[in-house]
Amino acid sequence: MKLRQLGEDRLLDQLLPRLPLGKSVSLGAGDDCALVAPPVGGNLLVVKTDCIVEGIHFLRRASALDVGWKAMMRPLSDFAAMSALPQFALITLIASKETEVGWVTKCYRGLRKAAARFKVSIVGGETSSTRGPIAISVGVVGFVEKNRWISRRSGKVGDDLFVTGRLGGAIKRKHLQFVPRIAESRWLTKSFSIHAMMDLSDGLGVDLPRLAHASKVGFEIEMENLPLNRGAKIGDAISDGEDYELLFAISRRQSKRLQRSWRKKFPRLRLTRIGSLIPQSAVRNPQLPGGYVHFQ
Amino acid sequence: MKLRQLGEDRLLDQLLPRLPLGKSVSLGAGDDCALVAPPVGGNLLVVKTDCIVEGIHFLRRASALDVGWKAMMRPLSDFAAMSALPQFALITLIASKETEVGWVTKCYRGLRKAAARFKVSIVGGETSSTRGPIAISVGVVGFVEKNRWISRRSGKVGDDLFVTGRLGGAIKRKHLQFVPRIAESRWLTKSFSIHAMMDLSDGLGVDLPRLAHASKVGFEIEMENLPLNRGAKIGDAISDGEDYELLFAISRRQSKRLQRSWRKKFPRLRLTRIGSLIPQSAVRNPQLPGGYVHFQ
Repeated sequence: MKLRQLGEDRLLDQLLPRLPLGKSVSLGAGDDCALVAPPVGGNLLVVKTDCIVEGIHFLRRASALDVGWKAMMRPLSDFAAMSALPQFALITLIASKETEVGWVTKCYRGLRKAAARFKVSIVGGETSSTRGPIAISVGVVGFVEKNRWISRRSGKVGDDLFVTGRLGGAIKRKHLQFVPRIAESRWLTKSFSIHAMMDLSDGLGVDLPRLAHASKVGFEIEMENLPLNRGAKIGDAISDGEDYELLFAISRRQSKRLQRSWRKKFPRLRLTRIGSLIPQSAVRNPQLPGGYVHFQ
Repeated sequence: MKLRQLGEDRLLDQLLPRLPLGKSVSLGAGDDCALVAPPVGGNLLVVKTDCIVEGIHFLRRASALDVGWKAMMRPLSDFAAMSALPQFALITLIASKETEVGWVTKCYRGLRKAAARFKVSIVGGETSSTRGPIAISVGVVGFVEKNRWISRRSGKVGDDLFVTGRLGGAIKRKHLQFVPRIAESRWLTKSFSIHAMMDLSDGLGVDLPRLAHASKVGFEIEMENLPLNRGAKIGDAISDGEDYELLFAISRRQSKRLQRSWRKKFPRLRLTRIGSLIPQSAVRNPQLPGGYVHFQ
């Protein structure tokens, strides 16, 4: 059955009652807005919205379940980057009326599954028709303690640079099935003073310069130390994008203790020192080829 | 110049510094997430996301300024429907790399202008490329007092039904230039006990049945009383959609006082009693032709 045969209201009737809601949700999907409990105490509200588009972030032949998973996990990876905890999500699905209803319900199953993995309540769902490719935009709201959030801005000259996991070649499979590093990020900020952090979505070659720029410093990378996914080359680790690993800066003094503790806490996830932050004036020339830049 | 010649980072560099930020914004656009102050006291968090798509909600020949205005005002109209106050917005722009940079900056000017009208801070901006039509998704976060929000669910048999403004024919012009009825909605809930409320986006013929269904009641409409925009016929008022007026149910006892006070408070905006809520069992047959239903 196609969407045009079902219509928006009946589609949402099918999708929305299945959404698991936490007790902090006063009014979930189905009304004009959603109403939820605000963060308490000294916590800040964290908001992020992100989208994926057919033909850019996924191909039509990809599993709809994986597509839904990816759409939800991308903004959650940004929460990991801030060391924040996600709570509520809103979904906007843009699809042509010729789309199979089965594809949409499977995509929603992926969205629900990903949300459940991090105890996120889906509190709103919107649909729109289009004459173009499918697009899914997910907005996420959550919180972070006032003294715990990490921006990209506070990296310091002399900091060591680390990445979690392995880089490169994500397009083959991992980009549809990754798990945002929220647990790792929360552990990092509980135990260490992280100066700057972000998630790697467009590739180290684009993202690291963004962190350095925001921190007003330069960087140097030990190319031979880059942790590679199986089959990936150094160039892939720099340019492929969609790794959704954490990149962060920490003072050299904490670096050794971090590596020891990490191995105990996350024995199955690699943590690699890939370089350091240096004065901007010390940067001789751009070291990295680019990653993925939208519109280019 | 086209987007492909500028690239995402330089585009955002152009757009984001111009965004006015309230003092409740700890971290605005440019990092992984935005951080803002949560609602205080007994207030609930209100969240909504909505999108507009080229070829569905606007035509390419429409003014980019109007398109940006509409993209922001649509979710704000949902805030009016709940009697909530918007505070922060996140923008997702999906456009092909052949899009003119001038179109995008003008569209952002419309978004900024609309946000400023209601003192909303734009705290995040995301872009993605596509091979299809332009889509703009706007997520909005705000608050409402715990005892003040109005859902669609609590309409009661015997309630009078009112609409603000005039209906029909919005597609000619109004759909791109409307002002959400937030001031009116806040005044209503300050002075009266509103049972159920929503904004009219898909047309009275689709939206009123949604309100009645959510309230588990039926409705009757006095067709000859529908307030019409110039040039619009009764059928247009029911089916055209995009009115962005308020539809609400209030007990008959408050109805007279409401009409008197309204005329004093909003002398230039019409308020019309269009019918009432009746028992579901009293509904003989569907009275209304449909409004706009996505995918159909």
